[in-house]
Amino acid sequence: MRTQVGIVGAGPAGLFLSHLLQRAGIDCVVIETRSRKYIEERVRAGVLEQESSDVLRQMGLGARMDREGLIHHGINLRFNERLHHIDFQDLVGKGVMVYGQHEVVKDLVQARLDSGAPLLFEVSDVAVDGLDTKTPTVRFTHQGQAQELVCDFIAGCDGFHGICRPAIPEGVLKTYERTYPFGWLGILAQAQPASEELIYSNHDNGFALLSMRSPELGRLYLQCDPEEDLANWPDARIWEELNLRLAGGKGLPEGPILQKGVTQMRSFVVEPMQYGRLLLAGDAAHIVPPTGAKGMNLAFADVRVMARALDAFYRDGRDDQLAAYSEVCLRRIWKAQRFSWFMTSLMHRFPDDSAFDRRRQLADLDYLTGSRAAMTSLAENYVGLPMEWALS
Amino acid sequence: MRTQVGIVGAGPAGLFLSHLLQRAGIDCVVIETRSRKYIEERVRAGVLEQESSDVLRQMGLGARMDREGLIHHGINLRFNERLHHIDFQDLVGKGVMVYGQHEVVKDLVQARLDSGAPLLFEVSDVAVDGLDTKTPTVRFTHQGQAQELVCDFIAGCDGFHGICRPAIPEGVLKTYERTYPFGWLGILAQAQPASEELIYSNHDNGFALLSMRSPELGRLYLQCDPEEDLANWPDARIWEELNLRLAGGKGLPEGPILQKGVTQMRSFVVEPMQYGRLLLAGDAAHIVPPTGAKGMNLAFADVRVMARALDAFYRDGRDDQLAAYSEVCLRRIWKAQRFSWFMTSLMHRFPDDSAFDRRRQLADLDYLTGSRAAMTSLAENYVGLPMEWALS
Repeated sequence: MRTQVGIVGAGPAGLFLSHLLQRAGIDCVVIETRSRKYIEERVRAGVLEQESSDVLRQMGLGARMDREGLIHHGINLRFNERLHHIDFQDLVGKGVMVYGQHEVVKDLVQARLDSGAPLLFEVSDVAVDGLDTKTPTVRFTHQGQAQELVCDFIAGCDGFHGICRPAIPEGVLKTYERTYPFGWLGILAQAQPASEELIYSNHDNGFALLSMRSPELGRLYLQCDPEEDLANWPDARIWEELNLRLAGGKGLPEGPILQKGVTQMRSFVVEPMQYGRLLLAGDAAHIVPPTGAKGMNLAFADVRVMARALDAFYRDGRDDQLAAYSEVCLRRIWKAQRFSWFMTSLMHRFPDDSAFDRRRQLADLDYLTGSRAAMTSLAENYVGLPMEWALS
Repeated sequence: MRTQVGIVGAGPAGLFLSHLLQRAGIDCVVIETRSRKYIEERVRAGVLEQESSDVLRQMGLGARMDREGLIHHGINLRFNERLHHIDFQDLVGKGVMVYGQHEVVKDLVQARLDSGAPLLFEVSDVAVDGLDTKTPTVRFTHQGQAQELVCDFIAGCDGFHGICRPAIPEGVLKTYERTYPFGWLGILAQAQPASEELIYSNHDNGFALLSMRSPELGRLYLQCDPEEDLANWPDARIWEELNLRLAGGKGLPEGPILQKGVTQMRSFVVEPMQYGRLLLAGDAAHIVPPTGAKGMNLAFADVRVMARALDAFYRDGRDDQLAAYSEVCLRRIWKAQRFSWFMTSLMHRFPDDSAFDRRRQLADLDYLTGSRAAMTSLAENYVGLPMEWALS
């Protein structure tokens, strides 16, 4: 098999890239080790920056999102038992789209399959080689047949645990990493969300987040130990603690808990995001803690930069944009890491924090919610900083 | 002796309070253990928020400040070998006054003595008692004579090492404290400052600050070990390191170093700032690291709240403002602590920081210097948040 761009991984990064390339007239093949059902049901991030949803819409991929997604014009911060609204619309004239990543994935998969373009699920034995040649190759097994996909470029969109990043020779990548001393116990609940917009709560017992996937489906989180044993958290205890941290003790509409899990909190970046003709995107190159709602948006931004650079290569024979791919992406990624770190630091209890640190943190919230400048700074990051396409 | 308010300590807090009370027709006596010469030559903070300088001017205490002080309309942040200007005037329509604390002290001492009101230097054996009665008393020795000053109120303006705070019974105060794992090696140099406005530099070797006391007198700082031995820092090494961190290697006008010292960096707050009829103000109740230039301004803000509360007491017989004194002050103090911590965290190298932390810090600076909202937030804190006179 021969293609221009081999895309490893059918998450938001790989799928969205395939549509961007298709629109630019660039051939690509997407391969994915998981089944279609698995990736379409995997609950992950749920917030699209305004520009992310705008681009989906412009590309004709936003019809169901516009029907089923929830446009939010702000968020709420809760501390000292009081709720403070951050009005994005008023502050920066933008909002965000609350629409589950797995819903985005469903839409992108369906559109790709409808177009007849290649998207292969349940492949195995994936390996990449020839990365520093002009014909890098993806090898894999599909339906029992060993396949060799010869490409001009490979897009490594196969996530944090994927095979692309480790295929880069030792010594090339520098890794930046931070783990947080807590996790999130998350639930998906058949319960009407208690608030139209998200509530981020900094409570003495720890962080809690009220979010939703639809007007009937709540997605709620509690800060917990990173090694928390779910056996310690029967449903009643979860609701009790959510009520305490989010609603002053009671008042959250409760309902059956459909899913329950503990997520580790990690910041991770590799530099550079490219080696020869392998370009990494999304979680394959970086992880943010979910507090800033940046995960899916960073994946989208990466592949937008990549698609533009590939377009310049094929259309105009220019490789300067490809050469700058990593550096252009990383500037945004580090700003998103900063914001995610800021939101995480602002809203969580840290086990090592002194009494001074705690008071300082509450003062941070007191200042923030009283300052238009500080709220604008939060808002412009949350709805998404402007794209930068080139090095300045 | 009898007075209405006994003021312990003739630093900026005590001296400014004496003028505020005098103007309100409230009697006070100021006592100070040091000599006049000592307090007039003690080099400390050097930046007045716009409102601090406005109030000095309105009270007729700003004539020399207006002649000799330097109005700054912004500051510079330096990182990655580039200088970025934060234009306070453009962002928030205000500026700051660069005028040494010891100069303010000289002006306030002179005006107090000119008025003939009592200001006693070189007192010793200072003690306070009867704090929970209506006649708290200050005892001290002055010119060999034991004195007893019976007051309605005592203002504890005697700094971090003063005797007023420890006179409060055990168990009343809660202490919040943070020490930073570095100090500042500061010099006063007969050398024209290389920049009209301050330069805060985050360099791989550590923080540096270029400031000035006059157009001929530079005040420069280097981040160093908190236990740094000055013997390791001959003048040539200091200039070399300042050049490296502030000017890319060379170019700072050099000159004789007149003073040299190492300052520890500490955040400290006690709550409440009052007990019975003792009211604490300034460094007696709180210390900020100098990075945010808030020290003298917090002292001024405290005594402005105190003077207003005492005026309400004597004029209208109201004690609600006195009762709220601590809480009103602390809201501002914690915001200033937050800002000082933010500036300190943003600009220093922390020994425990990982590679991730370092990149995140540089991304913080990259974001800040490219965002009007973030620069406005910095500016509004630096020039001084609006005074709050009552609990909201």
